[in-house]
Amino acid sequence: MAIRHVVTFVWADGLGDEHVAQVTAGLAALPDLIPSIRAYEFGPDLGLNEGNSSYAVTALFDDEAGYLEYRDHPAHRQFIADHITGKITSRAAVQLAV
Amino acid sequence: MAIRHVVTFVWADGLGDEHVAQVTAGLAALPDLIPSIRAYEFGPDLGLNEGNSSYAVTALFDDEAGYLEYRDHPAHRQFIADHITGKITSRAAVQLAV
Repeated sequence: MAIRHVVTFVWADGLGDEHVAQVTAGLAALPDLIPSIRAYEFGPDLGLNEGNSSYAVTALFDDEAGYLEYRDHPAHRQFIADHITGKITSRAAVQLAV
Repeated sequence: MAIRHVVTFVWADGLGDEHVAQVTAGLAALPDLIPSIRAYEFGPDLGLNEGNSSYAVTALFDDEAGYLEYRDHPAHRQFIADHITGKITSRAAVQLAV
């Protein structure tokens, strides 16, 4: 059973383009470091709808073990510590079977 | 520029397996009705993490026009009216360029 991971963030007030660029650069480095990532998409909301969140990440894994490898990988945890923790006002995540 | 649409929901209290089955059946019908959908994934959260949302939908479109066709399609609006409006406590959505 493949797993799709979906997460959205709302940035804290005062975080702007520089933060978004750091987030995007940090995420772009992860697939080379975490072999279980099969597909990885990330980026800021395009502004098509009112009330959207700020940014989304989606990832595809072969199975639950692949997702857990990503979730708990030191490079991913470091990315979260550097760019997410304390920098968001909300987060919504789902892992679903695909 | 292809567009990935991501949305997560948290169900209102008291909604259970029957509602989830109706949501899943309703979503499963949409790709045959809305030609601009290029890929469509949906399902309940697998319960791997505390604090997750209840359900997610992701969709892929060739471009912004394809996404807007989906967003505004009568079959999609009817699905939302039947199974989402008044049945969630929160919703988080992003459209991103992929």
